[in-house]
Amino acid sequence: MAEKKIRQEGITTGPFPNSRKVYEKGSIHDIRVAHREILLSDTHHRDGSVTQNPPVTVYDTSGPYTDDSFVLDLELGLPRLRESWILERGDVEQLSGLTSEYGQKRLADRSLDHLRFDHVNHNPLRAKDGKTVTQYYYACQGIITPEMEYVAIRENQRMQAVKEAYRQHQGESFGANLPEKEITPEFVRDEIAAGRAFLAANINHPEIEPMIIGRNFLVKINANIGNSPTTSSIEEEVEKAVWAFRWGADTIMDLSTGDNIHETREWIIRNSPVPVGTVPLYQALEKVKGKVEDLSWEVYRDTLIEQAEQGVDYFTIHAGLLWKHVPITANRVTGIVSRGGSIMAKWMLHHHCESFLYTHYDEICEILAAYDVGISLGDGLRPGSIADANDRAQFGELEVLGELTQKARDQYVQVIIEGPGHVPMQGIKENVELQLKHCAEAPFYTLGPLTTDIAPGYDHITSAIGAAMIGWYGTAMLCYVTPKEHLGLPDKDDVKTGVITYKLAAHAADVAKGFPGAQFRDYAMSKARFEFRWKDQFSLALDCETAMKYHDRTLPDEGYKSSHFCSMCGEKFCSMRSTQEVRDMAKKLQEKSEEFKETGGEIYL
Amino acid sequence: MAEKKIRQEGITTGPFPNSRKVYEKGSIHDIRVAHREILLSDTHHRDGSVTQNPPVTVYDTSGPYTDDSFVLDLELGLPRLRESWILERGDVEQLSGLTSEYGQKRLADRSLDHLRFDHVNHNPLRAKDGKTVTQYYYACQGIITPEMEYVAIRENQRMQAVKEAYRQHQGESFGANLPEKEITPEFVRDEIAAGRAFLAANINHPEIEPMIIGRNFLVKINANIGNSPTTSSIEEEVEKAVWAFRWGADTIMDLSTGDNIHETREWIIRNSPVPVGTVPLYQALEKVKGKVEDLSWEVYRDTLIEQAEQGVDYFTIHAGLLWKHVPITANRVTGIVSRGGSIMAKWMLHHHCESFLYTHYDEICEILAAYDVGISLGDGLRPGSIADANDRAQFGELEVLGELTQKARDQYVQVIIEGPGHVPMQGIKENVELQLKHCAEAPFYTLGPLTTDIAPGYDHITSAIGAAMIGWYGTAMLCYVTPKEHLGLPDKDDVKTGVITYKLAAHAADVAKGFPGAQFRDYAMSKARFEFRWKDQFSLALDCETAMKYHDRTLPDEGYKSSHFCSMCGEKFCSMRSTQEVRDMAKKLQEKSEEFKETGGEIYL
Repeated sequence: MAEKKIRQEGITTGPFPNSRKVYEKGSIHDIRVAHREILLSDTHHRDGSVTQNPPVTVYDTSGPYTDDSFVLDLELGLPRLRESWILERGDVEQLSGLTSEYGQKRLADRSLDHLRFDHVNHNPLRAKDGKTVTQYYYACQGIITPEMEYVAIRENQRMQAVKEAYRQHQGESFGANLPEKEITPEFVRDEIAAGRAFLAANINHPEIEPMIIGRNFLVKINANIGNSPTTSSIEEEVEKAVWAFRWGADTIMDLSTGDNIHETREWIIRNSPVPVGTVPLYQALEKVKGKVEDLSWEVYRDTLIEQAEQGVDYFTIHAGLLWKHVPITANRVTGIVSRGGSIMAKWMLHHHCESFLYTHYDEICEILAAYDVGISLGDGLRPGSIADANDRAQFGELEVLGELTQKARDQYVQVIIEGPGHVPMQGIKENVELQLKHCAEAPFYTLGPLTTDIAPGYDHITSAIGAAMIGWYGTAMLCYVTPKEHLGLPDKDDVKTGVITYKLAAHAADVAKGFPGAQFRDYAMSKARFEFRWKDQFSLALDCETAMKYHDRTLPDEGYKSSHFCSMCGEKFCSMRSTQEVRDMAKKLQEKSEEFKETGGEIYL
Repeated sequence: MAEKKIRQEGITTGPFPNSRKVYEKGSIHDIRVAHREILLSDTHHRDGSVTQNPPVTVYDTSGPYTDDSFVLDLELGLPRLRESWILERGDVEQLSGLTSEYGQKRLADRSLDHLRFDHVNHNPLRAKDGKTVTQYYYACQGIITPEMEYVAIRENQRMQAVKEAYRQHQGESFGANLPEKEITPEFVRDEIAAGRAFLAANINHPEIEPMIIGRNFLVKINANIGNSPTTSSIEEEVEKAVWAFRWGADTIMDLSTGDNIHETREWIIRNSPVPVGTVPLYQALEKVKGKVEDLSWEVYRDTLIEQAEQGVDYFTIHAGLLWKHVPITANRVTGIVSRGGSIMAKWMLHHHCESFLYTHYDEICEILAAYDVGISLGDGLRPGSIADANDRAQFGELEVLGELTQKARDQYVQVIIEGPGHVPMQGIKENVELQLKHCAEAPFYTLGPLTTDIAPGYDHITSAIGAAMIGWYGTAMLCYVTPKEHLGLPDKDDVKTGVITYKLAAHAADVAKGFPGAQFRDYAMSKARFEFRWKDQFSLALDCETAMKYHDRTLPDEGYKSSHFCSMCGEKFCSMRSTQEVRDMAKKLQEKSEEFKETGGEIYL
């Protein structure tokens, strides 16, 4: 066997502790939907009896990497799960080669062979002339695609079987349209057709396990990865990507601005079971060697096609930042903090004209529709400090994003809307309300927001507060923030911290909204906690490794995994242990005494 | 010089980077109020001009330890700042020795000499017969004490001088009574007299720098410390205490349950500039060797006096958990998770009678009033899982706490009310509303709440979300949660992480409520960020050390402290750098072109 082009020692594979991959079949289509099933130990009651705890099925973004039978080979890429679904629709053609000039040039460059992912007979697909191939189009035609059925089954987390067994608090969804009991494929279709949900699925990214972004589904999170001119290799970026979705990233954005970003992206996409987003402007700027004034619609257009044919699932496009907005940022404390936004502002001022992203917007939509690439309308004027939150510049741009949402829909392109940023708590709700209003309920996708500026090093937390709240109010996807925000490029540890932090914020939002079954994992965790099933607590934790490590720091011996206390309170002061004794005492008391019943006003147990 | 009884190498002293201690004089009383002043560097504009940035004064809990001139000597204890204020009121007497039996016994035990803090002529103080010595009583008499003036000056953070220079967002305070511009001593007095604020200040803890807990003041945080039967020495606990208030703990609670807790507490109090709280029941239980059934009112009473004469500023007392509540916890997922609550439930069931904390409550108040120890009414039935949040047990106890609040006030004892715990986001507001209603606006003091149960290892974050929100809604003090919650005893690193996390949550709440001047530090930080004043960003950060460490991990050289980018985006993609170029371009454009002005609809700059 030839030497590997890419090291894969850093890639973590294998199932989570006490977990296995399970596959649930579709009833409309011939599909197998992947879940993670967490196996729990039995409950040993104090009276000697034993009861079983049913396994807990959870939403799983980790892809085939956590399947026992998976054999890692980055050079092969992941199985092309959706390929037959796409081809069977009969509306795409396979091209004879790459369309973009840049793509062709890179392919022809033999000096890049050693770092290129080998495509074997995988020339890109594109919509046939006159055909529309987006999930939004299909939904509008009343079609339930395999992708739609996949996400319906996935969102349910096999909760139908267990949810009667526990109580969930009444949610407050602020007017969302959450299903009462379960997500059906018809519901998925209708939400997509209404423009309220986005099923990111480029026809050139058949490796993905379909997922959905929308206010009436589970709140999703995105993790940004990508190299920068001074750091990291292809290996490191692929490693970060696999790491990010292992821990829960629903999508990743590759924001690379360094060397070989075309080739890096190819490796990432071919090995990613989650949708991949990019900001094509970054690569376009790299192509003109960082000289903003040399950017042009032609370079940008070629970049869109290049990336669409690689399989990027959504593009951030800052088309709402217009010439007229630039002056009103002048009095801001932190100006324009979106990279894309500041680039386009510079370009406009240099050329004294309107942004080409706006003037060529219809053409952009036409290109994207041919591959089912979604648009994430960038908020070039998001506030970079709480001082600048909710100002005229920000909300002015939001109105333009509403106009662009409609234009994209006219061409059946799926749309999500990016949002802030930095917003104090009392200003967060207004963001959601205005976004829903201006953008006709298109899914909202926010960065945090950070609720204060004074804690650099802890901005995953300052922003998790805002993220949980904005998710509750109706945001569909939360872009993570790592502890390194404002300070430096995140490393692998930071990626994990960011992902877990956002996972918990998104989950807190699901619970608060009252998403069906959302509280079940909390219930299973609390029950395990009360019954001192320590291993089950670790298995059920969002970060099983850290939970166990912290526990074991003071009580490392195996025996303590079944002990009825931990080092926090010690044996004598463990309240849960005491409560169990209280229950035993109360039970005996009840058996003996009518008086006790009466004082309690009701029967004990 | 004799050998030291206690190692003090682990104690961190000295000012924060680029900061100095400043003292502001009172105008009513002869007092000097400590602040921390952060000195900032100049702004170098792109046109070559230079402007100065005024220093930023911030609330400082670190006490004398961060004063340049402070000489650390744990054996001397801190300066007795309030001693003359207390004595001059003429309503206290100095006792000839300790009143509590246990205190006398410990003092007589020569084998403890080597670990005892030496009191020299500091026999405890107590109210003279017929006198009431609580801040609440004074406030009701219309008196402004030095303590009250101290907190008024402290809360203002010298903001009057600078606050005109920046805009603060309109706050949403949910009906709180925040002053519009500044905190006056009269306002402090009136809030205490209304029972809406608690000035924790035992007459036997003259070392404290007065602080206030109330809905209409800055949100405060508490850090729990304390040894457990298996871990840590006196040194370690004193070290954790100093560490906790260095980073921002407004009060600390000593929850020790291990050896020598009487002596450990003495060292902590004598060296603590912040109020110290305890749960006397823990020590009472230690005294009866952990046998709950052996607890008695007599042991408990002696413990109250023992601790009151040491200078504990507030006691958590679980007097609201009654016999009638025990049966209604039977169907809970996690039963009773308050340590004090579970102990009292066990005691009641064993003895078949009502809690002695409830039946002897008036006597408890009488004891506390003689030393101005505040009551923190414990929520023995706080939920230990989101499943149990807002249930009948929890809110049933809350009603009893309301009744007990009134009884305490009748004896002029200051009261705060403890709250949850674990609550999903949509249930948080109800907690504040019911607490305000049942407890006549007594300050609310909550633990988190955690908004989900599934992230052990990250519960400082799951709870910071709830803490920021409940602080916004009206909670006056937030009890921190560390990353080790549910897993083990926190170490020094965990204490810091917990404190900083809660500091940022409390600050987010202050900003959202619209507390006067609260947003100024955010503004100063953002301005420093936009102007690439890296050192100023570190100085202004809640955790200056971590911020700098993260930055330096990728760009360690001194030169990068003034570079106009960081490793997150690199030089070419730095949006703030770009914005400054945009501003230059726009300015030139404006000078040349009327057209630009018109399109913007307003003048640029």
